[in-house]
Amino acid sequence: MNQEREVCTGNIYIENGIIREMDSTRVEADEVIEARDMLVLPGLIQVHVHLCQTLMRGMADDLALLDWLRKRIWPLEAAHDFDSLYCSALLGCGELLLSGTTTILDMGTVNHQEAVFEAINHSGIRAISGKCLMDNAPDAPPALQESTEDGMQETLKLLERWHNQAGGRIRYAPAPRFVLSCSRRLWEEVRELADSLGTLIHTHAAENRDETELVRQLTGQGNVEFFHQMGVCGPRTVLAHCIWLSEREEELLQESGTAVAHCPSANLKLASGVARIPRLLEKGVRVGLGCDGPPCNNHLDMFSEMRTAALIQKPVYGATAMPAEKVLAMATIEGAAILGWDREIGSLEPGKKADLIIINPGRPHSWPRLKHQPYADLLYQVKAEDVWYTVVDGKVLVREGRLVSIDEEHLARETDRQAHRLMTRAGLL
Amino acid sequence: MNQEREVCTGNIYIENGIIREMDSTRVEADEVIEARDMLVLPGLIQVHVHLCQTLMRGMADDLALLDWLRKRIWPLEAAHDFDSLYCSALLGCGELLLSGTTTILDMGTVNHQEAVFEAINHSGIRAISGKCLMDNAPDAPPALQESTEDGMQETLKLLERWHNQAGGRIRYAPAPRFVLSCSRRLWEEVRELADSLGTLIHTHAAENRDETELVRQLTGQGNVEFFHQMGVCGPRTVLAHCIWLSEREEELLQESGTAVAHCPSANLKLASGVARIPRLLEKGVRVGLGCDGPPCNNHLDMFSEMRTAALIQKPVYGATAMPAEKVLAMATIEGAAILGWDREIGSLEPGKKADLIIINPGRPHSWPRLKHQPYADLLYQVKAEDVWYTVVDGKVLVREGRLVSIDEEHLARETDRQAHRLMTRAGLL
Repeated sequence: MNQEREVCTGNIYIENGIIREMDSTRVEADEVIEARDMLVLPGLIQVHVHLCQTLMRGMADDLALLDWLRKRIWPLEAAHDFDSLYCSALLGCGELLLSGTTTILDMGTVNHQEAVFEAINHSGIRAISGKCLMDNAPDAPPALQESTEDGMQETLKLLERWHNQAGGRIRYAPAPRFVLSCSRRLWEEVRELADSLGTLIHTHAAENRDETELVRQLTGQGNVEFFHQMGVCGPRTVLAHCIWLSEREEELLQESGTAVAHCPSANLKLASGVARIPRLLEKGVRVGLGCDGPPCNNHLDMFSEMRTAALIQKPVYGATAMPAEKVLAMATIEGAAILGWDREIGSLEPGKKADLIIINPGRPHSWPRLKHQPYADLLYQVKAEDVWYTVVDGKVLVREGRLVSIDEEHLARETDRQAHRLMTRAGLL
Repeated sequence: MNQEREVCTGNIYIENGIIREMDSTRVEADEVIEARDMLVLPGLIQVHVHLCQTLMRGMADDLALLDWLRKRIWPLEAAHDFDSLYCSALLGCGELLLSGTTTILDMGTVNHQEAVFEAINHSGIRAISGKCLMDNAPDAPPALQESTEDGMQETLKLLERWHNQAGGRIRYAPAPRFVLSCSRRLWEEVRELADSLGTLIHTHAAENRDETELVRQLTGQGNVEFFHQMGVCGPRTVLAHCIWLSEREEELLQESGTAVAHCPSANLKLASGVARIPRLLEKGVRVGLGCDGPPCNNHLDMFSEMRTAALIQKPVYGATAMPAEKVLAMATIEGAAILGWDREIGSLEPGKKADLIIINPGRPHSWPRLKHQPYADLLYQVKAEDVWYTVVDGKVLVREGRLVSIDEEHLARETDRQAHRLMTRAGLL
């Protein structure tokens, strides 16, 4: 995934978490990982997930967006305590690492967001996260409603504690939820904060037809038009979904450099629609990929997501639309650029951080092993279960398909316990 | 998947390949399989696959149907010899068993079809297959062209050898490829044969817009109208795809009891379109599922296929369209009915054959393990890698995620070798 899209055969030499040599002749090191007949690629990058929702997997199936939010997700988010939130985030990080994702842009929740950062820190994943902001959501549970002041104050506190921590592996991005839950004043304050500190802004836009209609009633504008007018658009802003856009809004995204986080599985499952990604790409809009939250996917599996992103566009745009190499670029170097991290991650090149995954095509679903077209193989044949090693900052976090930084047995028990408690508190059991 | 859709907790007692007791209190047997905290379900049933194409996985990506056939699949099928075909079919059977499919309706190829049956026989999978018939395909490679007489004669020979063999586990179904490769006389002879022996007829219909247009130019009718007029429609006929249908053709399918084999991934990947399945189901058309061939999928993974079948309809028909229980029924009891096998397989009930799979939700992507909604869990959370045991006719064919009837190491080597030879013979290397 370097500029020339070279596919090399050889050793990779890593020192102090940095890739020192590609195609290296060195054969000795403190640790040698044998990857003969395997594929090594940059760690996958997801530009939109909700770690706080991993514990809600399977608790909200077959519902459309606004019902899904109001009947299930908001009551469940409101019921989180520190322990359930920590468990949810740790389960999410574990699943992400096991399926080859090394970097995420995460939308947090309103309360106890400290727990999400603690879990990220413990797991070793590279992440940008931020407390979710909702200062104007009268239909949300009281626990998710807070004043603009309280939300911004908590944001500043968390930002000070976590931005650029863990050797730069953890960053902060303010995360106002969406137009229907945020005041104009909040958008202004978030914009000022992001401008002054150079952080990303992470939010949702134009996900669902009804939602987009409500935004129009409220603001007199399309969702992206409104953001543009508020000064929220720009090259450090990531908007999840962007399905229901006018032609003018597509142009605004391109002109402002605003990035789109495309989440195809969630968009299908919540019946939101299919974002017109080939059209956005042709116009020069920056697009990355994400699995969104497990209750609307129900996985955090980027291999499944890449496959879905490619397949669903072909009936409309033709069999060669969304070619494998482009989709893999969106999931690596282009995702890194959207997060402002492409000088350090997103490709395997000397001087970049050692965020990489090793794919073992050792099971029948990948055979025959011809290796003449690695992009299509990776997109259509490799599965998350084929991720053999996951390395972040030079640290092995998945070894031979098992988590290193997280105790799986303990996580299994804790997950069941905390899920039961969460559902009880939310009144769903 | 019995009539009442009961979900039980307890032991299953199997004797001589037959389920004797559900919810059994017996605890002793020659072999006891511990499945505590796991899910047991009927083996999955695919009503359209091409075992002969498994070896072509990754050899034909990003092409539309007619190019895909003429530039890659036909030259490759023409280049098959007995050994490469046997290897292709065995790899397919292995992948199917590992991912929980116990029964298939397979479309064979023109030459060496004996090899497919040998592989099916060896693997232990339950299958209906038939030599592919192409007596009017001037644009196909010479090796795939044969006279009506030769095709029917070979069909009869294979049918006599394989129909109802292996204790009834293997059946034969004549398989004319599609309208664009078959003469009217062939359709008549196939219909007579199927009528006289009570076999299925297995073919393709209305897969691609250009193909359907060519059929209309050739016959003056829609594809299904043509089949109906030729007497090919009926309750023992399975038509793969059925994307481009008129309203009248949808009614013809329902009136005649003709079954549709829906292959959503292949339909997306070849840019063929999205079959209007919720609409067909509402009209009372019988619909089963299949992965088609690996070069257009690129897997034979029914869990991925069920998920795709559910997700792609929701943006058009709503979040509750294709509910999990219905999709699972299509993949089990309704697939069995389409194959005329529902008195023996498709559900777990005393007296039925012991075709079943055990799912182990033992990895983080399935957590938390709440078990309150098994259908949605199976559809959205379980992955093929979670298949722990696969049992056909009471025989364990997958044990703890590994093939029993097939030597995986030998298959890996042989697959690479035969794939290389096949591509060389086809002039694609």
